[in-house]
Amino acid sequence: MRREKLEELNSYLKELQVVTRIKKDIDPRFISSEVYEIHLKCGSIFLREKLLKGKKDGSAAIIFALTKNNEVLLNVEPRVFTKEGVQLGFPAGYIELGEDKEVGARRELKEEHGYQAGKMILLDEAYQDEGCSSALNSLFLAYDCEQVTSQHLDQDEIIKPFKCTYDEVLELNALGYFKSFNSKLLIERVKEYIKRR
Amino acid sequence: MRREKLEELNSYLKELQVVTRIKKDIDPRFISSEVYEIHLKCGSIFLREKLLKGKKDGSAAIIFALTKNNEVLLNVEPRVFTKEGVQLGFPAGYIELGEDKEVGARRELKEEHGYQAGKMILLDEAYQDEGCSSALNSLFLAYDCEQVTSQHLDQDEIIKPFKCTYDEVLELNALGYFKSFNSKLLIERVKEYIKRR
Repeated sequence: MRREKLEELNSYLKELQVVTRIKKDIDPRFISSEVYEIHLKCGSIFLREKLLKGKKDGSAAIIFALTKNNEVLLNVEPRVFTKEGVQLGFPAGYIELGEDKEVGARRELKEEHGYQAGKMILLDEAYQDEGCSSALNSLFLAYDCEQVTSQHLDQDEIIKPFKCTYDEVLELNALGYFKSFNSKLLIERVKEYIKRR
Repeated sequence: MRREKLEELNSYLKELQVVTRIKKDIDPRFISSEVYEIHLKCGSIFLREKLLKGKKDGSAAIIFALTKNNEVLLNVEPRVFTKEGVQLGFPAGYIELGEDKEVGARRELKEEHGYQAGKMILLDEAYQDEGCSSALNSLFLAYDCEQVTSQHLDQDEIIKPFKCTYDEVLELNALGYFKSFNSKLLIERVKEYIKRR
């Protein structure tokens, strides 16, 4: 990988580092849960809690986005409760209630990077937290992405866009830069897909 | 895959199906969250919520356990908020506060299957829900597992043990039986590890 590219990435990771996390006595607004009594076919009855995020199930789309110049669009963003406090990852976001997954993925790509995708392929889906959640995340490969507007984030959303080649993504992966299930499984599925073609 | 083996698996999946989920007006006891004010190095200040499970971060161990007879130990268990209501997966469980990950993985394997592992290899670690959680799950490969006791589950925990060969795990994976990030990434890491040897 080009040294200046890696230095660029490392400077973003440094810039977004967490200095302090101060616990506030404020009621949570995003995370909640509901309790259900579950009846199984075999007769067992028990209680289980369901995790909700903003009253939704928290299903998300994660996108491996290739631009027309064969670059991959990546995010450097605060992941404030991880050990590192900041993570390299892929464009991603929650699917809105009733929203089609691909539509949601395209929306997130546009919001986070200002890019419009050409063809999109759903590579895989997986439950994020099967014990207590319905969240089913979709892993997309997006081809021929091109910039149509600028980044347009929600208030309090901070994302440093970072671009590199496909081979550099694999290199960063081998170096351990990607640390989430979302990113790691997406990379595996993209590798398999590219190999099969 | 042997037909009777697949029929055995399908009968477990059927038996543990959810008949009804009744929402109860009970305060949640397992899922909670805390609000933090985050200060970044770059000067940004914002609020973020941290997901907790039983007051812990929810880090778990997932184990690909090979017995001395070269069988793989699998779980069929209610995953009541997934679409299917029940899932095939691997022995897994939350790591206790202050508990060593490998110790926790061994404990879970013993509780869920009554098996003691020989050598254990940590194949990978990944953040489960990097946006709002510290949960870092550990993916283990356990060799030479042998039965030393019977299954010993918590109250309300229901797990049907299911055993099959390594090749059958790959077959079930190709058939789409494994639907979670935990299971899918564990299988990828085991395949890579076995291939490298």
